[in-house]
Amino acid sequence: MSLQQLISQIGPLDKQAMSAARSRQDMLTKPQGSLGRLEALSIQVAGITGTPRPRIEQKVIVTMAGDHGVVAEGVSAYPQEVTPQMVYNFLAGGAAINVLSRYVGARVVVVDMGVAAEMEPHPKLVDKKVASGTANMVAGPAMGRAQAIESLESGASVVENELARGLDILGTGDMGIGNTTPSAAVACALTGRPAADVVGRGTGVDDAGLARKAAVVEKALAVNRPDPDDALDVLAKVGGFEIGGLAGAMLAAAAHRRPVVVDGFISTAAAMIAVGLAPQIRPYLIAAHRSQEQGHRIMLDWLDLKPLLDLDLRLGEGTGAALGIALTEAACRILDEMATFGEAGVSEGEESL
Amino acid sequence: MSLQQLISQIGPLDKQAMSAARSRQDMLTKPQGSLGRLEALSIQVAGITGTPRPRIEQKVIVTMAGDHGVVAEGVSAYPQEVTPQMVYNFLAGGAAINVLSRYVGARVVVVDMGVAAEMEPHPKLVDKKVASGTANMVAGPAMGRAQAIESLESGASVVENELARGLDILGTGDMGIGNTTPSAAVACALTGRPAADVVGRGTGVDDAGLARKAAVVEKALAVNRPDPDDALDVLAKVGGFEIGGLAGAMLAAAAHRRPVVVDGFISTAAAMIAVGLAPQIRPYLIAAHRSQEQGHRIMLDWLDLKPLLDLDLRLGEGTGAALGIALTEAACRILDEMATFGEAGVSEGEESL
Repeated sequence: MSLQQLISQIGPLDKQAMSAARSRQDMLTKPQGSLGRLEALSIQVAGITGTPRPRIEQKVIVTMAGDHGVVAEGVSAYPQEVTPQMVYNFLAGGAAINVLSRYVGARVVVVDMGVAAEMEPHPKLVDKKVASGTANMVAGPAMGRAQAIESLESGASVVENELARGLDILGTGDMGIGNTTPSAAVACALTGRPAADVVGRGTGVDDAGLARKAAVVEKALAVNRPDPDDALDVLAKVGGFEIGGLAGAMLAAAAHRRPVVVDGFISTAAAMIAVGLAPQIRPYLIAAHRSQEQGHRIMLDWLDLKPLLDLDLRLGEGTGAALGIALTEAACRILDEMATFGEAGVSEGEESL
Repeated sequence: MSLQQLISQIGPLDKQAMSAARSRQDMLTKPQGSLGRLEALSIQVAGITGTPRPRIEQKVIVTMAGDHGVVAEGVSAYPQEVTPQMVYNFLAGGAAINVLSRYVGARVVVVDMGVAAEMEPHPKLVDKKVASGTANMVAGPAMGRAQAIESLESGASVVENELARGLDILGTGDMGIGNTTPSAAVACALTGRPAADVVGRGTGVDDAGLARKAAVVEKALAVNRPDPDDALDVLAKVGGFEIGGLAGAMLAAAAHRRPVVVDGFISTAAAMIAVGLAPQIRPYLIAAHRSQEQGHRIMLDWLDLKPLLDLDLRLGEGTGAALGIALTEAACRILDEMATFGEAGVSEGEESL
């Protein structure tokens, strides 16, 4: 499906399903509202899926990898070779995302969106490589506009393939040495905030590295002047292939009325691109957690999303999304499986005391 | 085991196991510390269990029920008959705690610590009834000192039975109409804070009910003058049978080197009693969540515990503990199952950039 078709297919949440879910929550054997955000989450999923009692069974985490020309500026504590090494680690099942996905019963789909290495073919590796890493954004656009569109549409096609295998909820994840730098640049471009407010330590740069990162982001913005009213321009000039891929995956999930659990800093940058392209996608998004990366709060505020978890995670890969998927599934099970006051023969509370 | 024996068996965490767990976390294929509180949690469990790579398999949530004479003062939005009705709902599998326990793979053990009704025998109901509800604490002690000891030792015996069936982690839960009132009184007695700071809306009282609740707590404290340096005195004068039972369950779990995931407001009051009796139990405790009940923050601060979740829950039953158990298990799986840099052939980061 083309980008324009995807965007045009994302409709509003189903108010009738939400209202039915709210009514059911209020009949379940607990004081009304006593399960707090779990109740709200179940009602949101009802609205997304158009089902008063949604069941989440097929859980999918799409982890997209890409490399970044901007690493030449010395913005990461790790060498670029770690991107393909970690992709192989994902394929072998040894990474954190593998452990957490097994724990929550999700399948991980690993996608090469633009790793700067020739990857050995692997039955579990989805090849959507747009190019071998982006160009260095301090010298010009990270990618061309056509590549930005390609990354979005390729990301969407990954989700469309997974929908055919069964996908009730999408979690997003990323891998890419240096990718907190373009993510920060995307956030700065769209929010108008200075780099110093948004840039963080990523995998663990020291104070000098942090200052260098902020200067690199400022320079990339000055050189490229991305248009904040044109998310495609922002993606092309200061984004990355995995960021575009994740934004496209989110658009496809929402177009098919599936909830999207957004992971940390990089996935949230992708969510900002998706919302820039299709503002009506916002209620389909669930923020899994607040990252330790300092700018994440600014990004979540811009998206008007309140994260479910705050555990000082800063790994990416979809690790926070895996935990967020578990909470979302738990919320839906409560809505579906709990007994009502009538069924259980429990007296209801007074209106007020 | 007697209360004194239990207390004397609670030793310090195993520093060697914690150090081995820390070393392993630092060799796993992720930037050091990037899984934040999940890393710390796995190391805590290593220290509790004395195992460098602890596995959590048998998960048990003990949900203890009791009634409270103080409901005569009109402190709850629900009638007292709801306590036994909800116990039957637990036994039938229709309550929120049943749904969440099924989801996280925990077994629920339902205990009658002092329900003010004759309960029909049920194979899944553990009968540890100390009395048919406490006395009204505004007129004198909620229970006698011997009953307080009985509630603690009975609670411990429940956990000792479950240990024989297999218990790798304990979650705590409560049911008892009116029990936020004695829990608030316990917190006031131990922290010295005024009732207005600690008392909340419980299942949902209105402003007048809230003011009445605070006045009731102040009166109970004035009438009984519990000794803040004697947790047994606090439990007896302004506590409850399920609060004592849960404190005893925590002591038994810690005496056997098992982690304890503490649920919300009532369980946290029980944790305060446990810490008052045995200060060395504190590192065995994991706070599952911050309740919507306003005084909970004060209680957690007094315990120096930082909750894992903040989802505006205020149901009790062990619902927050179920989610906290899942996070703890996930943290331990990461420690145990992830590949190291060496195993995965991934390059390590530089010391600093």
